[in-house]
Amino acid sequence: MISNRTQVTEMIRAAKVAKGLTWKAVADAVGNSKEWTTAACLGQMAMTKEQAATVGELFGLSDEAVAWLQIVPYKGGESDTQHKDPLIYRLYEAVHVYGCAMKELIHEEFGDGIMSAIDFDLDIQRQEDPKGDRVKILMTGKFLPYKVY
Amino acid sequence: MISNRTQVTEMIRAAKVAKGLTWKAVADAVGNSKEWTTAACLGQMAMTKEQAATVGELFGLSDEAVAWLQIVPYKGGESDTQHKDPLIYRLYEAVHVYGCAMKELIHEEFGDGIMSAIDFDLDIQRQEDPKGDRVKILMTGKFLPYKVY
Amino acid sequence: MISNRTQVTEMIRAAKVAKGLTWKAVADAVGNSKEWTTAACLGQMAMTKEQAATVGELFGLSDEAVAWLQIVPYKGGESDTQHKDPLIYRLYEAVHVYGCAMKELIHEEFGDGIMSAIDFDLDIQRQEDPKGDRVKILMTGKFLPYKVY
Amino acid sequence: MISNRTQVTEMIRAAKVAKGLTWKAVADAVGNSKEWTTAACLGQMAMTKEQAATVGELFGLSDEAVAWLQIVPYKGGESDTQHKDPLIYRLYEAVHVYGCAMKELIHEEFGDGIMSAIDFDLDIQRQEDPKGDRVKILMTGKFLPYKVY
Amino acid sequence: MISNRTQVTEMIRAAKVAKGLTWKAVADAVGNSKEWTTAACLGQMAMTKEQAATVGELFGLSDEAVAWLQIVPYKGGESDTQHKDPLIYRLYEAVHVYGCAMKELIHEEFGDGIMSAIDFDLDIQRQEDPKGDRVKILMTGKFLPYKVY
Amino acid sequence: MISNRTQVTEMIRAAKVAKGLTWKAVADAVGNSKEWTTAACLGQMAMTKEQAATVGELFGLSDEAVAWLQIVPYKGGESDTQHKDPLIYRLYEAVHVYGCAMKELIHEEFGDGIMSAIDFDLDIQRQEDPKGDRVKILMTGKFLPYKVY
Amino acid sequence: MISNRTQVTEMIRAAKVAKGLTWKAVADAVGNSKEWTTAACLGQMAMTKEQAATVGELFGLSDEAVAWLQIVPYKGGESDTQHKDPLIYRLYEAVHVYGCAMKELIHEEFGDGIMSAIDFDLDIQRQEDPKGDRVKILMTGKFLPYKVY
Amino acid sequence: MISNRTQVTEMIRAAKVAKGLTWKAVADAVGNSKEWTTAACLGQMAMTKEQAATVGELFGLSDEAVAWLQIVPYKGGESDTQHKDPLIYRLYEAVHVYGCAMKELIHEEFGDGIMSAIDFDLDIQRQEDPKGDRVKILMTGKFLPYKVY
Amino acid sequence: MISNRTQVTEMIRAAKVAKGLTWKAVADAVGNSKEWTTAACLGQMAMTKEQAATVGELFGLSDEAVAWLQIVPYKGGESDTQHKDPLIYRLYEAVHVYGCAMKELIHEEFGDGIMSAIDFDLDIQRQEDPKGDRVKILMTGKFLPYKVY
Amino acid sequence: MISNRTQVTEMIRAAKVAKGLTWKAVADAVGNSKEWTTAACLGQMAMTKEQAATVGELFGLSDEAVAWLQIVPYKGGESDTQHKDPLIYRLYEAVHVYGCAMKELIHEEFGDGIMSAIDFDLDIQRQEDPKGDRVKILMTGKFLPYKVY
Repeated sequence: MISNRTQVTEMIRAAKVAKGLTWKAVADAVGNSKEWTTAACLGQMAMTKEQAATVGELFGLSDEAVAWLQIVPYKGGESDTQHKDPLIYRLYEAVHVYGCAMKELIHEEFGDGIMSAIDFDLDIQRQEDPKGDRVKILMTGKFLPYKVY
Repeated sequence: MISNRTQVTEMIRAAKVAKGLTWKAVADAVGNSKEWTTAACLGQMAMTKEQAATVGELFGLSDEAVAWLQIVPYKGGESDTQHKDPLIYRLYEAVHVYGCAMKELIHEEFGDGIMSAIDFDLDIQRQEDPKGDRVKILMTGKFLPYKVY
Repeated sequence: MISNRTQVTEMIRAAKVAKGLTWKAVADAVGNSKEWTTAACLGQMAMTKEQAATVGELFGLSDEAVAWLQIVPYKGGESDTQHKDPLIYRLYEAVHVYGCAMKELIHEEFGDGIMSAIDFDLDIQRQEDPKGDRVKILMTGKFLPYKVY
Repeated sequence: MISNRTQVTEMIRAAKVAKGLTWKAVADAVGNSKEWTTAACLGQMAMTKEQAATVGELFGLSDEAVAWLQIVPYKGGESDTQHKDPLIYRLYEAVHVYGCAMKELIHEEFGDGIMSAIDFDLDIQRQEDPKGDRVKILMTGKFLPYKVY
Repeated sequence: MISNRTQVTEMIRAAKVAKGLTWKAVADAVGNSKEWTTAACLGQMAMTKEQAATVGELFGLSDEAVAWLQIVPYKGGESDTQHKDPLIYRLYEAVHVYGCAMKELIHEEFGDGIMSAIDFDLDIQRQEDPKGDRVKILMTGKFLPYKVY
Repeated sequence: MISNRTQVTEMIRAAKVAKGLTWKAVADAVGNSKEWTTAACLGQMAMTKEQAATVGELFGLSDEAVAWLQIVPYKGGESDTQHKDPLIYRLYEAVHVYGCAMKELIHEEFGDGIMSAIDFDLDIQRQEDPKGDRVKILMTGKFLPYKVY
Repeated sequence: MISNRTQVTEMIRAAKVAKGLTWKAVADAVGNSKEWTTAACLGQMAMTKEQAATVGELFGLSDEAVAWLQIVPYKGGESDTQHKDPLIYRLYEAVHVYGCAMKELIHEEFGDGIMSAIDFDLDIQRQEDPKGDRVKILMTGKFLPYKVY
Repeated sequence: MISNRTQVTEMIRAAKVAKGLTWKAVADAVGNSKEWTTAACLGQMAMTKEQAATVGELFGLSDEAVAWLQIVPYKGGESDTQHKDPLIYRLYEAVHVYGCAMKELIHEEFGDGIMSAIDFDLDIQRQEDPKGDRVKILMTGKFLPYKVY
Repeated sequence: MISNRTQVTEMIRAAKVAKGLTWKAVADAVGNSKEWTTAACLGQMAMTKEQAATVGELFGLSDEAVAWLQIVPYKGGESDTQHKDPLIYRLYEAVHVYGCAMKELIHEEFGDGIMSAIDFDLDIQRQEDPKGDRVKILMTGKFLPYKVY
Repeated sequence: MISNRTQVTEMIRAAKVAKGLTWKAVADAVGNSKEWTTAACLGQMAMTKEQAATVGELFGLSDEAVAWLQIVPYKGGESDTQHKDPLIYRLYEAVHVYGCAMKELIHEEFGDGIMSAIDFDLDIQRQEDPKGDRVKILMTGKFLPYKVY
């Protein structure tokens, strides 16, 4: 009996190590970006029937688990326990240090509103650099102005 | 008597509204990017003597305040009280939702290590889009591998 | 010297009691809904020059304060200290008790995504009822589907 | 041995996915609103014997589980771990941003007291809109004045 | 300039010590119970014009302060910083130890619902006892059944 | 192997639902008040050998579980996870709103000291009322003066 | 205007350093133990008129401050911000490490109940020791058995 | 497979109830004080081979569990979940109320430094008293002066 | 099925006690420092295939567990529950007391930037001392200057 | 009126910027290490009369402030608000990642006990390195074994 999406994420994590799969290979099979696909496998996005079937086959999941992949998950919960991981913490730290500057500059350019985290995409690349390669993270999100009524 | 950098940030915020300055104009005068300059004015970066003098003149700061601009600040503290601001929260939410995926993909590409938040830069632009303009946030940080010894 | 929007909110609160104004009268003068206008006066929305001038006149604010009314505020912070107020707590409790049900039903109707809290409006009315009048709170927010890429 | 209501909620969630049921179908069978019925299935409301029997049959629950559906549950606990889910968070954010305004306006209309979260109902609908359909959430709760004695 | 009710509470506390008043004397002058009157003076209840005038005269408050006494306050906030006071903590401890028992017994007697904390009164008395006098706290609150719809 | 009292509470809760017992019936069998007996069954009080035997028989507990009923429990822990239950929260809210008033009035009557939460009893009754029955909660605790030395 | 006891504690702390007084000298003048007297001066105990007069003279306090010394204070709040002080932390650590053992042993000797922290006294002495002098802390508190009813 | 010391503590707690042992009897068999022995059994101290063998025999532990008794444990963790137990809380409350006074008096007698919580012993006794027996807790810890360098 | 690295750490802890291994012996077999090797076994570092094979053989781990040793772990999470252990707490306390001084002195020597915790090594030694041996902890980390752009 | 040591730290911070002093120069004048002296100026250590006089002269402090420098301070509090500063956070992160390894290795070498944070010293140096200079932090603290009694 599977009663929440987290159990499926654990099955996927276990199968990934046991089978030696990479997220890129999973993304190629699914036909979406590696960023969306990885987040989806880790329980942050809902999959279509076809996407779920592909993922289920790759990881050897049961039909019940494949059904759960198509359910809209409770998102955002997992990273809390992982807040102190140094890689993830650096992302939070960038917001601690630059959060106000980002707010000020986005308002200066767009006025009052926010960058959507829903109509949003993410792209992570290696940027070669003779002084040491860099991680390049590109986020774009639709600007949503506050409604005045 | 000025006993911490936050007091200078308050003077800058007050003067910015009173004088109607924009961060872009400040950055142009200082000669650095708008992202670094805004963060520096908001107390997240230390300025050189010349940068501080320029900022002091623009905002009409006292010599004591200008001296404080050159002191390495205690960083990261201000955004805590602003954690619930919807614009800033969306940045945290992107990490809540995508943090694990970012970790997995960076390790898949680079191995064990982190993206530096120190040897790091940030670029915020408007990306025109017929379905509604988008906020584009580009971060790059040097990849730092864990030392094995 | 005014260095943050909270100081202006305090001036407005003080003047409102001293002058015996109602929020409805303020909203009528501004020409927007009472919900938006009250939130704006309490530091949650940015005003246009005209809106700010009207509000400034009603509450007897200085030019500096009127300038601050036009700055995009850091939102969402004030209600934290007021989390235990019984009226406000009931709103949180409604989410504690019904939050999962709301999530499930919105996904059942719309698929994966959220109700925007930005392209959002709020309407509060008295609903007469022989068993005791009721507070009627109507929220509408644009449905935003998660982007798949 | 079932020792708390949460275990029954997990059974219901598992059966719902396995059987592909919708909350609306459950509500129709029970004969109450979809909002109340979903909340009740998720462990926030107590059911009558008849309601519990219907739900038990739909989800294939044991007699012991059906007995637990009739017990007054410990409410409000589940949504805490789901506080960071973007859909649920937007509901909290609406209170962060508008909580004080709601308080001020309800007092302006009704005097001192609260909107009940017990003598309370909830209605969620799709509001069609050419600029994108909207989620419409309507809450009504009895106004309860503070007792003076 | 008085911008919140807490400032008036501080004036009342200062004047009470300076003038050597008792809460009972204040309650007698106001004409309400000592429990309601003390809570009202400490910023938890709104007063009528007459009540406020009486309190203002007893404590020597300004007109502005008297006006604030008639405003519905943000309630419940003050006791948080006083959570560790041994007398107040014992009240919380009684709930820690007996909270579940109270819930179970109220549901056994009344069914699903709550005891109102709004349509609520409180009475504190000395109960003489040869083994040592006892504090007697009597609370009554209207039972409110959950609405089924 | 039973290694803490919470496991026995779970057995009691499970058996209570399965057997359809009421707390009043349990209290009558034990021969103590319903308030003390319910708290004791829920792991907040230690029982004598006779009390434990009676409870064990009613709920069909093993000898090991009956032995645990006689052990002084770690008290107060269970209600924390249930802090957001609306019925229990109202009890905390009464302290948030009236805590300072209770402190002031008890000191005014008794001087410095506290109401004991140990030499303490609790009585919960239905108070009939034409405007809707009321929950009546009566607490008495010995006044304990602070020792001066 | 003095509106809380903490302000008087600050006056006492300032005067103690300025005048170079010791707590022992204060205690001798007051005629109580150094432990009670120090706690009282730091805002944890209420003083009689005579005790307050003596303390007021020693520290040069105003009549208003002397009146506040006789008011029952909100206790226990100050040490929270000082939780990380190494000397104070060691006291908490002793409870972290030995708390359960103390509970078990007190129950083994006395049965169910607590050691009072109200009918309680404290004695701190130097215990000479050739391997390094020791701090000796002696606490006694009345045992209070739980009431069964 | 035993993977942490807490599992052994649970075995000891279960066996203690099942066998009806007292901590004093365990301490006598081990040959150390009841305070040290109880803390050690509850996972706060490491035992020698002989101490572990004695404890293992008394509680009927496996060899693996006996091996774990000799491992230095992660200390201090257990009491956190038990912070609200009234007996343990009173110990914390004594520090809330007297912590600053203890700090001031120890510094007045010894200068800057702390009382060790490592080179520390604890003694708990019944102090007979006609007004009600008292719990007597005696702690001594070596004074450690801060190093100046 | 192993679904996270923590499960492997538990296997290693269990095997270490059962087999009586020392961390030094493990480090010698692996061929790295005892500090890195211990952290790696405890789930803080990723191992190469050879390192994992050696560790797997020493502790008798399954192939699946050995595969997990090569996965980059979620780091930093385990020590949170162990925050109150006295040995670990002293490390945090050193930062509480000296953190600002360390910051000031590093900036005075190096300018704005940080000491890397990634390009970092740690060395722990016994330093003999006639007044009692000392623990010597040596940390070195690359200085990383903040990027100005 | 100076009522706590934090006020003196603020005076020192203000004077240090205004006068352009370095911590090394202060330490040389005082005659102690730069680590101890900086911590002492920042309110973490008590000074002798001579040390305080020297510091007072360098920073131009009043006699009252100089008297406060000789009082044992409440330590450890300031760094809390600065927990998110990237330089200070890396020190905490080193404990998050290596804390358990440090504990295990110190126990393996020394047995049960701790490294003192009181009989403790700290040395911070630049370590030149062709790949980028390193920060070298050396801590030594006396090993304190747990007392068995």
